[in-house]
Amino acid sequence: MQWYVVASLLTILTSSQGILTTLSQSNGGYNYDYATVPFLAEVFKLAVSTVLLWRECKASPSTRMTTEWKSVRLYLIPSVIYLIHNNVQFATLTYVDTSTYQIMGNLKIVTTGILFRLFLKRKLSNLQWMAIILLAVGTTTSQVKGCGEASCDSLFSAPIQGYMLGILSACLSALAGVYTEFLMKKNSDSLYWQNVQLYTCGAVFNMARLLLDDFGSGFEKGPWWQRLLDGYSITTWMVVLNLGSTGLLVSWLMKYSDNIVKVYSTSMAMLLTMVLSIHLFHFKPTVQLFLGIIICMMSLHMYFAPPSMLVDLPSTSKAALDSLQEISVDRRTDS
Amino acid sequence: MQWYVVASLLTILTSSQGILTTLSQSNGGYNYDYATVPFLAEVFKLAVSTVLLWRECKASPSTRMTTEWKSVRLYLIPSVIYLIHNNVQFATLTYVDTSTYQIMGNLKIVTTGILFRLFLKRKLSNLQWMAIILLAVGTTTSQVKGCGEASCDSLFSAPIQGYMLGILSACLSALAGVYTEFLMKKNSDSLYWQNVQLYTCGAVFNMARLLLDDFGSGFEKGPWWQRLLDGYSITTWMVVLNLGSTGLLVSWLMKYSDNIVKVYSTSMAMLLTMVLSIHLFHFKPTVQLFLGIIICMMSLHMYFAPPSMLVDLPSTSKAALDSLQEISVDRRTDS
Repeated sequence: MQWYVVASLLTILTSSQGILTTLSQSNGGYNYDYATVPFLAEVFKLAVSTVLLWRECKASPSTRMTTEWKSVRLYLIPSVIYLIHNNVQFATLTYVDTSTYQIMGNLKIVTTGILFRLFLKRKLSNLQWMAIILLAVGTTTSQVKGCGEASCDSLFSAPIQGYMLGILSACLSALAGVYTEFLMKKNSDSLYWQNVQLYTCGAVFNMARLLLDDFGSGFEKGPWWQRLLDGYSITTWMVVLNLGSTGLLVSWLMKYSDNIVKVYSTSMAMLLTMVLSIHLFHFKPTVQLFLGIIICMMSLHMYFAPPSMLVDLPSTSKAALDSLQEISVDRRTDS
Repeated sequence: MQWYVVASLLTILTSSQGILTTLSQSNGGYNYDYATVPFLAEVFKLAVSTVLLWRECKASPSTRMTTEWKSVRLYLIPSVIYLIHNNVQFATLTYVDTSTYQIMGNLKIVTTGILFRLFLKRKLSNLQWMAIILLAVGTTTSQVKGCGEASCDSLFSAPIQGYMLGILSACLSALAGVYTEFLMKKNSDSLYWQNVQLYTCGAVFNMARLLLDDFGSGFEKGPWWQRLLDGYSITTWMVVLNLGSTGLLVSWLMKYSDNIVKVYSTSMAMLLTMVLSIHLFHFKPTVQLFLGIIICMMSLHMYFAPPSMLVDLPSTSKAALDSLQEISVDRRTDS
């Protein structure tokens, strides 16, 4: 499969995620416990990956699976990072409001680029760096509050701790992505085997979280497994399946493509969600959304288009290529 | 003189223009007739150019000056375009409010690029086209009304005629610039002689405008020459000198550089004015201004940086260049 097919699919599914989640609400709230959704999505991904791994093993007995504890334990790390990230996120939100938090969230585009360079040692051209910054600027632009919307001067007025935590949050989010890419690419193990390890950890960590929530509330609503599917509608199930599917696609991209492609997919998804919301939920279109879309499209083109399509290569190097060909023809006839 | 020195100077002076104009007001209004400012600026430019032309003629008797009517009459055209432009501008403002008009004004960046390509037959790389679009997007972003500011849904709610006239206005503005560049470059006449022709037309047209205003008001305040300097303060004179100087710099750029450089200078000046206004007039800094500045900086870099600085040239062409050199050394030693 081509990476851009998977990336486009990821954009569509990520965008549906926001819309399905909104549709699954009733009267502006959830009838179900939202914390159960990521848990069930992990279970879904684990089930799919197990079946696919089993089929792969049956088809080719040489399926590569590293089973040493030294390797397996590394798959715990993304879950640990996400756990820390969730807590930092929570702490950030005690200092800044949600719209400031959302705006700061775009920082993770830039931090992903930086960690991608530092940690995975991947070189990016100057133009690609500029494209990454523009992507962050574009998504931020689309989120700028228009006139008439509430909370005017919140963006520059939060305490400094809020901004520091926001930056830390962006770094952790990027680190989780970059580390997962490192894990998936470090050996030629079967993708499905890698997924099984990743999602087992994910399921266990999510289960622990549900349990902790229960402890936190003193089990007043009973243990989580007794109310796991309470209030689930067909839409809620679609939210779960959709979240699980996006996870599987991200996993594929981490192995066969990279974090930057994922960042582009999810950023484009955010813009697509905003455009669809105008139609579905009668949101007002804003100039800043329109501008944000143009900026992100430019960024996409700058990052992925081949350089020869963007700039006119200096004629000397073109001429050099041509004359080199002539000379090599020359020489072949000579000898 | 290097073009970027002139361009930077133009940015600083254009930016001062907005600030000086604000400082020349008292109680939010003008004590003087604002229409006299462009007229006096034309007279100032004409005087400076005449002196410089006279000095040039004295220094080198071979100063090139085409004096045929066939050539001289062409210098009327920019003034005629500006005259039409002023009227279209006036008509546009009867349909749209000033903030929508200001936002639409950024279109002239794109129309200048298009006419520059069509009329002057100048090729731009894909990346340069993207840079021009981003410049327009960046200046627009910086102008997006923030929360709490008035007139919410005016931008998409003007009658269609308003938008059509806005586009026409952007085309006329670009046409005037591109035509002036064509005039200045079409022969190797002395810049000062070209300026004298240009500013004589400018002064005459501005004078005619003052006279028409007088006719319009039935001479109730007396003829314009009797109240030309009424209410002029030292700041007003600085506005005149500043406007005149920017005109002379633009003229230089049109002859020795081009319209796109001018467009970048004036766009950067707009952002600089907004930043300075935060300090001078205690304007509130907005996220959109910050985002707009980043976008315009990226655009500037994309347009002017040499391609080899932006993209990694394909290694084949580099290798080709290297091996070509080797081969040519080879051949030289052979023979």
